[in-house]
Amino acid sequence: VDPAVARAAREHQDRLTKPRGSLGQLEDVSVRLAALAGRVPAPVPASPAVAVFVGDHGVHAQGVSPWPREVTGQMVANFLAGGAVVNALARQAGAVVAVVDVGMSIEASAVIGAMPGLDRRRVRAGTGDITVEAAMTRDEALAAVAAGAAVADGLLRDGHDLLVTGDMGIANTTPSAALIATLLGADPAVVTGRGTGVDDATLARKVDVVRRAVARAAGDGVGAGDPLGVLASVGGLEHAATVGFVLAAAAARVPVLLDGVIACSSALVAAALVPDARAAMFAGHRSVEPGASAALAALGLVPLLDLGMRLGEGSGGVLAVGVLQAAARVLAEVATFDSAGVTDKNAADGLGAGDA
Amino acid sequence: VDPAVARAAREHQDRLTKPRGSLGQLEDVSVRLAALAGRVPAPVPASPAVAVFVGDHGVHAQGVSPWPREVTGQMVANFLAGGAVVNALARQAGAVVAVVDVGMSIEASAVIGAMPGLDRRRVRAGTGDITVEAAMTRDEALAAVAAGAAVADGLLRDGHDLLVTGDMGIANTTPSAALIATLLGADPAVVTGRGTGVDDATLARKVDVVRRAVARAAGDGVGAGDPLGVLASVGGLEHAATVGFVLAAAAARVPVLLDGVIACSSALVAAALVPDARAAMFAGHRSVEPGASAALAALGLVPLLDLGMRLGEGSGGVLAVGVLQAAARVLAEVATFDSAGVTDKNAADGLGAGDA
Repeated sequence: VDPAVARAAREHQDRLTKPRGSLGQLEDVSVRLAALAGRVPAPVPASPAVAVFVGDHGVHAQGVSPWPREVTGQMVANFLAGGAVVNALARQAGAVVAVVDVGMSIEASAVIGAMPGLDRRRVRAGTGDITVEAAMTRDEALAAVAAGAAVADGLLRDGHDLLVTGDMGIANTTPSAALIATLLGADPAVVTGRGTGVDDATLARKVDVVRRAVARAAGDGVGAGDPLGVLASVGGLEHAATVGFVLAAAAARVPVLLDGVIACSSALVAAALVPDARAAMFAGHRSVEPGASAALAALGLVPLLDLGMRLGEGSGGVLAVGVLQAAARVLAEVATFDSAGVTDKNAADGLGAGDA
Repeated sequence: VDPAVARAAREHQDRLTKPRGSLGQLEDVSVRLAALAGRVPAPVPASPAVAVFVGDHGVHAQGVSPWPREVTGQMVANFLAGGAVVNALARQAGAVVAVVDVGMSIEASAVIGAMPGLDRRRVRAGTGDITVEAAMTRDEALAAVAAGAAVADGLLRDGHDLLVTGDMGIANTTPSAALIATLLGADPAVVTGRGTGVDDATLARKVDVVRRAVARAAGDGVGAGDPLGVLASVGGLEHAATVGFVLAAAAARVPVLLDGVIACSSALVAAALVPDARAAMFAGHRSVEPGASAALAALGLVPLLDLGMRLGEGSGGVLAVGVLQAAARVLAEVATFDSAGVTDKNAADGLGAGDA
């Protein structure tokens, strides 16, 4: 992105009829959107789309979640029927929901059979158990990244101009924590959370599982300097697809709203592969999963919402769509002091109009 | 509100296809909306309206703001032309904006002349200087409360089902701080903020001004036990109108989104007059003004957004419209475990479906 465009956006923001800085984070978002689009003001995103990437996890066998793997499939059926939270929030935001199987298990996919509406791009039927083996091969990781990128490209071709990450996969906060611990060199105890709300005993087991996965990957010679290797070793198929989805949005200079810890861990991989991709990333919300905050801090992203959410599905990303659109709209539509004939005290003393 | 309805709403929320509690604050908002409406689920608000109440302040003479009083009128013209931040955010939210003069000064109203579109309900031309005299008489305060209630009633008759508070008035964070300090018995230094962003010297002067106003009111025998007296003594005309607006919404059991410190100080008065009115209040955002947080804590309200905003106009309230609608929509539209055929682990162990 061009720093001159960001500067021009900031200057335009400072001429709007309001005290400088009085819109806080909305101002920063509007400047970042302009820099990403390469023009001031940026277009106001009009057609959001959320992609829910679905995968299952071999590490489920370690007892990190009380939910059976079939629930992944049951929830996919729920998404396709429009009955899940992400569907309700997407209707509120005027967003479409794409549901993409990149890695459902046999058990999960048996639940839904030939149900129409599912975008079938399965790379493999669930990952390996990351405590004892790599989640997938490097080729499989690349194939899932490509699948996610293809989904983004399709949505962009259909005219969508704001992408939102979503995910479904029983046990998927465990590989998320493993990705974050490995990429940031963080203590698994610090970045592993309760997911759906597991009890203390399960949390302790989960931390141990993440620790073993991180150690196993290190033993296999996989480290933070090889982000694709880390993704294949301790990640998930929905994580890999999200990496591709984010990178494709960034390549098209289209904003992508990140949801929770699955998205944040995937965004870490994407940023490690293509540092400039961060310019397209916007954090929808702060998940209560501790790994999400660690990843956001590392990415330098400040979330738009902080509502104590921990659902996944893309719910926290799609809920933030209106806030991101509002930021763009302010820069695009608000009158300047000159055009509105409002006395500007900004120039004199760094203040601005509005209530004081 | 009926606690049985709130209980039924919570029970329904717990049957939705997601882990219990995983939507954090959205769940609490959905339950409060149902309790307010008296039915489960509550209707999803479809037609929001923001009322921007406008007043001027005699205390402006004390140098609490660098902006001339004319800016109040210039900004009213900007609102009526659709060029202000609140207009842009209202378009984003699908909300109408009503601009209501309840107390503009002669200087401010001279700027706009006979401009059409302004709802003219002026009770008096600006308040008295609260450091030396009451802002207004008790009768004037009541008249402004009635004006605000009439605006709410008109919007409700027009079919609006979600009201948002807004304000404009150069210097109006000063009476807001005086209201909060008096009603909560708080130290003026703790609840007085920088408003548009005044410098250290002006902030120190502003704290002193608030301290003198609070002392003058106490000397006049006005205390927290007489909320209408406090409103008349140290408040503003837009504050009084906001009190009436909030009380009318509450009487109609319609949710009202509070904006920043002007709204929060007014809501304190409304809650002191009619404690049950709190059931209708939803905090749109956490203003950076310290008095706003003090008032929200006293009201027991948790803000939906926290974006470092301090503009007023209703901007932080109208920005939260989509989040409130989303909360209602979840309770109204999301499938239950039974209806969607999703295995429910909630019952067994307090968890739920989704990613884990």
